[in-house]
Amino acid sequence: MKYRVAIVGATGAVGQELLQVLAQRKFPIRSLRLLASERSAGKTLAFEGEQVSVETLRPDSFEGIDIAFFSAGGARSQQYAPLAVQAGAVVIDNSSAFRMHPDVPLVIPEINPDAVRGHRGVIANPNCSTIIMLMALEPLRRLARIRRIVVSTYQAASGAGAQAMQELLDATRAYLQGEPFEPRVLPHPYAFNLFSHNSAIGEDGYNEEERKMILETRKIWDDSAIAVSPTCVRVPVLRAHTESIVAELETRPPLATIVDAYRRFPGVALVDDVARNHFPMPLEATGRDEVLVGRIRYDAGTPNGVALLACGDQLRKGAALNAVQIAELL
Amino acid sequence: MKYRVAIVGATGAVGQELLQVLAQRKFPIRSLRLLASERSAGKTLAFEGEQVSVETLRPDSFEGIDIAFFSAGGARSQQYAPLAVQAGAVVIDNSSAFRMHPDVPLVIPEINPDAVRGHRGVIANPNCSTIIMLMALEPLRRLARIRRIVVSTYQAASGAGAQAMQELLDATRAYLQGEPFEPRVLPHPYAFNLFSHNSAIGEDGYNEEERKMILETRKIWDDSAIAVSPTCVRVPVLRAHTESIVAELETRPPLATIVDAYRRFPGVALVDDVARNHFPMPLEATGRDEVLVGRIRYDAGTPNGVALLACGDQLRKGAALNAVQIAELL
Repeated sequence: MKYRVAIVGATGAVGQELLQVLAQRKFPIRSLRLLASERSAGKTLAFEGEQVSVETLRPDSFEGIDIAFFSAGGARSQQYAPLAVQAGAVVIDNSSAFRMHPDVPLVIPEINPDAVRGHRGVIANPNCSTIIMLMALEPLRRLARIRRIVVSTYQAASGAGAQAMQELLDATRAYLQGEPFEPRVLPHPYAFNLFSHNSAIGEDGYNEEERKMILETRKIWDDSAIAVSPTCVRVPVLRAHTESIVAELETRPPLATIVDAYRRFPGVALVDDVARNHFPMPLEATGRDEVLVGRIRYDAGTPNGVALLACGDQLRKGAALNAVQIAELL
Repeated sequence: MKYRVAIVGATGAVGQELLQVLAQRKFPIRSLRLLASERSAGKTLAFEGEQVSVETLRPDSFEGIDIAFFSAGGARSQQYAPLAVQAGAVVIDNSSAFRMHPDVPLVIPEINPDAVRGHRGVIANPNCSTIIMLMALEPLRRLARIRRIVVSTYQAASGAGAQAMQELLDATRAYLQGEPFEPRVLPHPYAFNLFSHNSAIGEDGYNEEERKMILETRKIWDDSAIAVSPTCVRVPVLRAHTESIVAELETRPPLATIVDAYRRFPGVALVDDVARNHFPMPLEATGRDEVLVGRIRYDAGTPNGVALLACGDQLRKGAALNAVQIAELL
């Protein structure tokens, strides 16, 4: 059985990564349709040695499509995903448009694969920071219920798209040459600088990225009581997100049991070399499928706390890989 | 009254900053002696328009000195600070050598100025991450006792010295030019990368920087019960440390009272513009005396929690400025 696949937002950072992941995992593709805004139409993208033309996204783009990956922002998903479903496709949506909709499964295949069963045409891919955090905590959660998570993120440029990655490079080059640089994509200077995540802040003081981490965690783990205290920060790194996490558990498993659980868990790689001071780093997470986890230790501040550092490629497990894994579940 | 001042480690990043801070604050200097290792002897450094020669640090370097600032690493402080005290000088030590010694006051002038009174010749300057964290929390602590702190740091290159700052620039330039670069100062590639703080890790899984934040907090606040859960990370930023902090209080003051307390506290500048998404950033903290504080909000995860983001110039308030303020207290 092979599938007719469409990618909406094919020219974006996640779209490009989707093409790579589909090829690397030998996803059974019968036909591939690349869709993007009018601006990108006519471009061609390489897939398995062939050049595929990018077509303009239109209401009738989904005729004869089995699986449509959406990665072109929430507004485009809102408008076109229902049309794709109507045309008979299953939509795997990387935007936040449908994530909290009660009829839409929000899935990390290693964590809640069974959730896909109830889908009505749309399956949502969680936020990248959420995916990396929950992958990094799932082995722990299987040992003891997690009551509370305090997390600070170190998010890469890639989360704001290919243009933001280019801006980081351009801004840094200008800085090193002593030339002025005016930010175009991100709201603040990015060269050798960091800033609170550039999403809107609500009345409770939390920005959208942080709110996603709170709400999506509750939905994916099906635990409305879990407390999440996130702070999301953008750092001058290209494409892997790092997270500093302290989790408070109901009981405290032996440290050896915890480390062993991380060693066995699929999709997680233990990088925890205390002697060499070698732990998860974005440069080493880049291009890898696994979420790297290390610095695993009992929290100095609470009796049942465990602290760790996690790092995952925002474009792979944080986006494209997780989406393709969802398609594989189907 | 004017003082005969010596600076040990005058050519280092903190030493250079000490010269600037002494000049800017018009510290009453009668004479200035710059001391460094043999390697730097013979160099000259500018101070208030004059060139001052750097002398080799020797056991007899402290004859006739009133105040000696030490910023040349723990080993040098261990060896020479007692000699300076013997010669009649008061030592203000920026290293970690004496910080936890019961006879040595550990002082942040805005927080525990009275502690200097008990000194026996040596006064210790706290670790830079500790200073920035406690400055960012002191206004809160005066409203309600803090039970626990969870903190993740985003530490700049400057914390590892001037050579590390140069390595960040060189490594990044090489990366942008597609050239290989071998790290010399720091243990990991630094261009567009981050890594767990490069200090040795103990049996409890905490590294030295984190342990300093735990122990120094207890000493400065004279609160042996306070729980601190730190994670220290080095980010590709030149010279201001950022910290993401969640504090759990015994009671929960009104948010307006909290914000007002920050507005009034000396040495803290409130940077909390929600509408413009403008919060503390290293680029804006660089060169400033104040610790910038923003993103102040009730913690989503605990009833009496307050979350915030702080950013302070590691070389100024994190080191040189605090040391000079201690000297001013005397």
